[in-house]
Amino acid sequence: MGTTQLETVPEPKYWHLRTVLSEALESEFAVGEILPNERDLAARFGVARATLRQALEQLELEGRLQRRRGVGTTVAPPRVGVSVGDEEPRWPGALDEAWQSVDSTLGTPPTAVARLLGTADGEQVYRIRRSRVSHGQPVAAELLCVPVGSLPDLAVPDSSLTAAAQARAVLRALGTRALDGQDRSVELGSAGADDSKELDRLPGAPVLVVTTRFFAEGRTAAVSVATYRADTCRLTFGDSGRVQIHHQN
Amino acid sequence: MGTTQLETVPEPKYWHLRTVLSEALESEFAVGEILPNERDLAARFGVARATLRQALEQLELEGRLQRRRGVGTTVAPPRVGVSVGDEEPRWPGALDEAWQSVDSTLGTPPTAVARLLGTADGEQVYRIRRSRVSHGQPVAAELLCVPVGSLPDLAVPDSSLTAAAQARAVLRALGTRALDGQDRSVELGSAGADDSKELDRLPGAPVLVVTTRFFAEGRTAAVSVATYRADTCRLTFGDSGRVQIHHQN
Repeated sequence: MGTTQLETVPEPKYWHLRTVLSEALESEFAVGEILPNERDLAARFGVARATLRQALEQLELEGRLQRRRGVGTTVAPPRVGVSVGDEEPRWPGALDEAWQSVDSTLGTPPTAVARLLGTADGEQVYRIRRSRVSHGQPVAAELLCVPVGSLPDLAVPDSSLTAAAQARAVLRALGTRALDGQDRSVELGSAGADDSKELDRLPGAPVLVVTTRFFAEGRTAAVSVATYRADTCRLTFGDSGRVQIHHQN
Repeated sequence: MGTTQLETVPEPKYWHLRTVLSEALESEFAVGEILPNERDLAARFGVARATLRQALEQLELEGRLQRRRGVGTTVAPPRVGVSVGDEEPRWPGALDEAWQSVDSTLGTPPTAVARLLGTADGEQVYRIRRSRVSHGQPVAAELLCVPVGSLPDLAVPDSSLTAAAQARAVLRALGTRALDGQDRSVELGSAGADDSKELDRLPGAPVLVVTTRFFAEGRTAAVSVATYRADTCRLTFGDSGRVQIHHQN
């Protein structure tokens, strides 16, 4: 579909309604307030229920509304800024207060992660699950994969340790290695069955997927795939007030 | 809705179908291939049309499918990695090849941008629109706002210049100032009327909104709001191979 064609497409009805509703939210409603029911809203704005629902879904996607079963539709608080990359490169740390280790198992990595790690077919990795809470709300769920071969001195699994303690042991061992660098990508995804439970959402909810590769000794030593709730989170990357760089142009 | 309750919610039908379809895409279809029509697909998987449509929408959100009017549903190519933050902090540059200046006007900034800039009510800014193309496809549309007061020596608007030339003049003037640092945030949004035209999408299409603040002389000297197509882009932030940092732990 070319741009020329697009220009002749009129603005969809629900999109116009979204703009009108968005202004009404600013001027008439407070954060946390419950919106009138769909029938009343559709009548007030003179639109079909289907159009209204599309506009509400849109505003939910934009983080302006929250729809909760048994409660109804409420005005969402502003998104929480969650720091993702304002630090120098560093290993996912045992002392990282933002994250809590949930589980550690041995197994094969997901296909996409195996590709990033360059592991052989069937090669075992430590699969560590962590979760991140901010302001009392779950904001992210992470799967960290570390090839078993890259931590040869580690005595895990150890049946005397809980899964969380095993996860911490892996993170500690990783932290003793020299980290050469890291890179990150962010893309839109949807919460899978595991993640959605940890994030207190239904499967399929939109998430921001942050993939981090950690480099050591010329190879990818670990890959983290973290899914952040797209409805409540704004990911921040920054160096404000810390870097002093003068432009040479 | 608490986690405990969520655990008792069965996996939605469309979510199960999404997983089945996703596997079929991997094993049976090539990139660019057109999927059978909805009626045939619904029959093959034994589901209602509405369930099928939900699963297709989900896979579109995840960047696995593309739905184009007049063409049908095709298997999407892998998302394109678009570099957003692998550089040292620097001004949005006149020489920045990734971006093309489209327009420059004088006006007031959007409310959210005014808040970040700390401009007074009604204070004028240069509003510069730029667009970014990657592999021949539009990937991002940007609105850059620079308070007129922060570039006192600039003789713009100048009626002898095209809008694109005026935009370049503003960027050049900005580039002569000392840049103290910058920070960025990424969140989920939806394409507005202007952006959607530039991105060749319909209004409301999901986008990744990258907001960058540029700091100079103790204040925010410019704010850029760039919307990236969420269906085709993976934003990359990285220093791989450039930073050599040794872990001290």
